Amino acid sequence: MRILLIGAAGKLGTAVEQALVERGHDITTVGRSSGDLRYDITDPAQVAAMYSEARRAGPLDAVASAAGDVLYKPVADMEPEDYTSAFHGKVLAQIDLVRQGLTRVAERGSFTLITGVLSRDPIPTSSAAAMANGAVEAFVRAASIEIAPQRINAVSPTVFTESLEKYGDFFPGVPPVPLAEVAQAYIRSLEGAHTGRVYELA
Amino acid sequence: MRILLIGAAGKLGTAVEQALVERGHDITTVGRSSGDLRYDITDPAQVAAMYSEARRAGPLDAVASAAGDVLYKPVADMEPEDYTSAFHGKVLAQIDLVRQGLTRVAERGSFTLITGVLSRDPIPTSSAAAMANGAVEAFVRAASIEIAPQRINAVSPTVFTESLEKYGDFFPGVPPVPLAEVAQAYIRSLEGAHTGRVYELA
Repeated sequence: MRILLIGAAGKLGTAVEQALVERGHDITTVGRSSGDLRYDITDPAQVAAMYSEARRAGPLDAVASAAGDVLYKPVADMEPEDYTSAFHGKVLAQIDLVRQGLTRVAERGSFTLITGVLSRDPIPTSSAAAMANGAVEAFVRAASIEIAPQRINAVSPTVFTESLEKYGDFFPGVPPVPLAEVAQAYIRSLEGAHTGRVYELA
Repeated sequence: MRILLIGAAGKLGTAVEQALVERGHDITTVGRSSGDLRYDITDPAQVAAMYSEARRAGPLDAVASAAGDVLYKPVADMEPEDYTSAFHGKVLAQIDLVRQGLTRVAERGSFTLITGVLSRDPIPTSSAAAMANGAVEAFVRAASIEIAPQRINAVSPTVFTESLEKYGDFFPGVPPVPLAEVAQAYIRSLEGAHTGRVYELA
């Protein structure tokens, strides 16, 4: 399959790219400042330009996203702008990949978005991240019943084994998940037949 | 309890107000164009003014929201502004009630927000509503672990029995829920001890 992978430069994106290449897929990576194509997906005009450039090289079978940072701060210290920024960075940007991708991805193509454990098992300071993940997961379920035969799923991992040293203290007693296992959920979404699923890893 | 009820003019708000009054609570209703206080909660400055005015009449024990309209449109017809508007109208406005309420509601007070069935059981055209509901529900879980002893819950009803005539065709075969039963979930949230709960009605 010819797959557009957004957010390929991060820890997760790198692992997903490797897993997809190992499965023989043709990957075009997209990032703000690195990758085959350079676009900022929080800007709808850039999403349009990204699809145009990607399609000049041939039809697209799928889009996979590993992009979307949000900030961590106690609820009491949050400003409306902090939630708005999380919404634009993780929710609307990923929704736009789908919205604009409907006419640009194969009829039986798929979209795989990234969310995360915090929507179901929050930690202190995670209210914006949780909000964003919950929004994307509900969008995935809602969009799936409209866009068939195109498919859409989300991958929702807990803390990565490879990030334990940095973030482990925020997830006391939480079993981590290896990046390679998270990448397999992308394979499952991309090559399988599911739609409207949220693959919860741990 | 002295309770601020936002969105009191709607079908749901009216039912919630009646149930709360029957339980002997002291209700101050808030609406954009009707109610004891007139404020638009999508504007943070008006939320601040609303709390100031409400508190001049005495301390607040709880805030209950029955507010938040979103638009219904096929995913393929949605524009980024449609999702942004749903985010501001139903997500950020309710989050702001909590954010600004932390220092203005009693130490053991509570917040009860409104979501809806579409985040778990979507219907076609509901992607913005689903997204908004999923965002609020995840926020409720995340905020609950930070704001104790204050509490926060969400009420998530399916289609109202009283709205079947108007909306029933969009929910084929879905068992409706009477408004009086939804109002009981508000009572449960307000008078009970739960926090971080999403009360799913049907």
